Amino acid sequence: MKRIGAAALALFFCATAAAQDAPALSDDQARTVDRLIDKGLEDDLAWTILENLTTEIGARPPGSEAEARARDWGVDKFKKLGFKNIRIEPFEMPYWARVSESAEIVAPFPQPLTVTALGQSPSTSEGGIAGEVVRFSALFELEASPSEGLEGKIVFVDEPMTRTQDGAGYGVAVQKRSRAAIAAAARGAAGVLIRSVGTSRHRTPHTGASVRGGASLGPIPAAALSNPDADQLARALKLAKGPVTVKLDLKTEWKDSVQSGNVIGEIPGQTDELIVIGGHLDSWDLGTGALDDGFGVAVTMAAAKLVDNLKGKPRRTIRVVLWGAEETGLHGARAYAQQHKDELDRHVLASESDFGGGEIYSFDIRFGEGAEAKGAVMAQALQRLSIIPGNTPAFGGPDVLPIRDLGVPVVSLRQTGWDYFDLHHTAEDTLDKVDPDALRQNVAAWAAFIYMASEMDGDFGRLPVNDAGD
Amino acid sequence: MKRIGAAALALFFCATAAAQDAPALSDDQARTVDRLIDKGLEDDLAWTILENLTTEIGARPPGSEAEARARDWGVDKFKKLGFKNIRIEPFEMPYWARVSESAEIVAPFPQPLTVTALGQSPSTSEGGIAGEVVRFSALFELEASPSEGLEGKIVFVDEPMTRTQDGAGYGVAVQKRSRAAIAAAARGAAGVLIRSVGTSRHRTPHTGASVRGGASLGPIPAAALSNPDADQLARALKLAKGPVTVKLDLKTEWKDSVQSGNVIGEIPGQTDELIVIGGHLDSWDLGTGALDDGFGVAVTMAAAKLVDNLKGKPRRTIRVVLWGAEETGLHGARAYAQQHKDELDRHVLASESDFGGGEIYSFDIRFGEGAEAKGAVMAQALQRLSIIPGNTPAFGGPDVLPIRDLGVPVVSLRQTGWDYFDLHHTAEDTLDKVDPDALRQNVAAWAAFIYMASEMDGDFGRLPVNDAGD
Repeated sequence: MKRIGAAALALFFCATAAAQDAPALSDDQARTVDRLIDKGLEDDLAWTILENLTTEIGARPPGSEAEARARDWGVDKFKKLGFKNIRIEPFEMPYWARVSESAEIVAPFPQPLTVTALGQSPSTSEGGIAGEVVRFSALFELEASPSEGLEGKIVFVDEPMTRTQDGAGYGVAVQKRSRAAIAAAARGAAGVLIRSVGTSRHRTPHTGASVRGGASLGPIPAAALSNPDADQLARALKLAKGPVTVKLDLKTEWKDSVQSGNVIGEIPGQTDELIVIGGHLDSWDLGTGALDDGFGVAVTMAAAKLVDNLKGKPRRTIRVVLWGAEETGLHGARAYAQQHKDELDRHVLASESDFGGGEIYSFDIRFGEGAEAKGAVMAQALQRLSIIPGNTPAFGGPDVLPIRDLGVPVVSLRQTGWDYFDLHHTAEDTLDKVDPDALRQNVAAWAAFIYMASEMDGDFGRLPVNDAGD
Repeated sequence: MKRIGAAALALFFCATAAAQDAPALSDDQARTVDRLIDKGLEDDLAWTILENLTTEIGARPPGSEAEARARDWGVDKFKKLGFKNIRIEPFEMPYWARVSESAEIVAPFPQPLTVTALGQSPSTSEGGIAGEVVRFSALFELEASPSEGLEGKIVFVDEPMTRTQDGAGYGVAVQKRSRAAIAAAARGAAGVLIRSVGTSRHRTPHTGASVRGGASLGPIPAAALSNPDADQLARALKLAKGPVTVKLDLKTEWKDSVQSGNVIGEIPGQTDELIVIGGHLDSWDLGTGALDDGFGVAVTMAAAKLVDNLKGKPRRTIRVVLWGAEETGLHGARAYAQQHKDELDRHVLASESDFGGGEIYSFDIRFGEGAEAKGAVMAQALQRLSIIPGNTPAFGGPDVLPIRDLGVPVVSLRQTGWDYFDLHHTAEDTLDKVDPDALRQNVAAWAAFIYMASEMDGDFGRLPVNDAGD
């Protein structure tokens, strides 16, 4: 409790300092922020964008033909909304796709299990692989197990995920998605099954990248069981008098290089300074990518449009980027950082919306030294939307990580993720799961933020360069 | 409001009359009822039975090899629990099975749709059928449409289902499952898609029989879209500027006759009168049949066992029947009525537990004239379990319909079905959805009911014979 008290106190001083000394908004600007919030709370454009994208295109796997159609859709949508400097910036990337997948308990209790291949999983041999199941209750148990003894086995990592508002539970549980196959392969296992990295109690397993950076296939076939199916396999192991044998049959596809691209539209400003916002255009294949990340695409496009509707040009250029191929390794984000490295000093501030469909509850910043007070001013302006000033350094969003690592300051308009991991990366990521009121609250907050970021005097500093970044 | 008031008043008189004049329970019997309820509320046996059945066998499609394994499991379980006169009563029935299923929007918005074939659907031609989608907002619209004009089309019946406690919404919505294909085929359609007969917001479509009586295949291929997929197809029709084409690819299997069977175990009584209870052993293939109807099997076996644990023999014999092949047309129930027609006069009372995993909230009777007061006595004894006396004639359960039609009185221990149709006939019908407290409440109520039915003086009358049958 002491620690929380201290944090609250620090925030109070920060806010107070901001109110007294910092570059506050002018009365005109404050009125404009309020008007943008009012407009955002009535916004229908984001819903229309999201409905169009998820219905007319549906799922948009990285590097797929559907993602290419989504890029054309993005160009068309930017045009219709009056954005300028619209273009696709292509890049090359490796391609993985799911072809077919099934699993079953072969003995002693024959029955099907619902699975989905993890991204970058190799295929099993034709007809599938069968092996005795060896269960580990958590990743750390597998990684601490002897280096031999799993030859030909199917490793089952039964680690559950903790439900949290801020996604901290995901951060822990997702480790097994990439590390389980490595640890199991090192011990000779034939394949890996993990309990889904998600909190859903439904039979909709959770996919996601299993190789960091996404440049190669994983070492052995790897799939996720839905939570009820993981329960079932654990029960079968409990009730069986001997070994439990499972068969896993995965067919996947791999290409070393295909084309993807980022789609860009701008609202030109009076200066060549840039505010970069957006969401990622690609999605996993199982749902229609309504929450991940059609929501981010729709919110940032609609919010930028509200700012564009104001009289006159914004001070800084608002660049909306619909990043490509985020899911299999931030390919679009890394291409963007490479392709724009010579103009990064003009990137004044960046942020991505990519955390599902919940309301925004916290505004976090990661600014250069001395610029923090501007964040407090922004947070105060967002308070009427039930948004609190955050007290941790902003993440910024996955697709701004590469430019953040190169010094560009970022913010996070953090959304409640309580229910997000019931839906994320599953067949349930569909439009019917989007709450239109939460969508409007997001648009209102983003419109207010974009406007303030564009108009505030001075900049937001620079971050230390992180060469270790991916 | 007037009608409800009158009904409540009638119940009050009924209960009062019962308390004063009717064959009340003796003090000893009333104490036994209370003790059975206490035991039921602590029962672990039902959970063990249900866990064993759903884990060791899993799904048990009618007439399948898995259902045969479930019969052996049933015999074994009856033996271990000390039941007597254990046997399998075989019968022949037609067999339908799902082999594979897929659907997709071909144009203008290519993307997959999640479907499941309806029971008794024929296969499509090899490689699937494609056709323009014609949407009807409800079955009555399709049935009122002109007798021509749908040649080669895919009919989409988009009728939603209303959530109700007592299943009334299902009774309405389920009509389209059998009648849509008939009406569409009569108008020349190539195939039928229906919105799932269920309330789930998840991508787990709802299967179920599409031919009443189950003696033949349906007229044209028929499948259900999950509710989110039905939303998506409706949106595609709204946003498309021209026709929407869907491809449906179903492969199913049909055999005119295979063997199934009912499994019977008894607690012998002092007389040759019978109380017949049970659940059905088969299930749909998509889940593990935990709620439909492993729950009914577990509750009635465990409740009968509690009665068996009492000192001395019950007055009447308690016969527990695990009916086979309910889902595709009450095949086991009809075989039972045929095979036992010469002893139906010894069937004093019958009831099946087959309405999911909710708590029992109402006790309904359908007794012969003059026996109603006994129902009031039973209802009073169940009141401490928050069960009210019902005011509609009992249904009895699907597998007692054939003997009810031949005069056997029935009761219903009616369960809350508020959430049932989120799970029923879908991949979600799995053990993790069962509430152990509700399971115990059911065991307690059934044990009390079975005991009272067995011990009460006099009988429950006979019902008029209904030659129209099902």
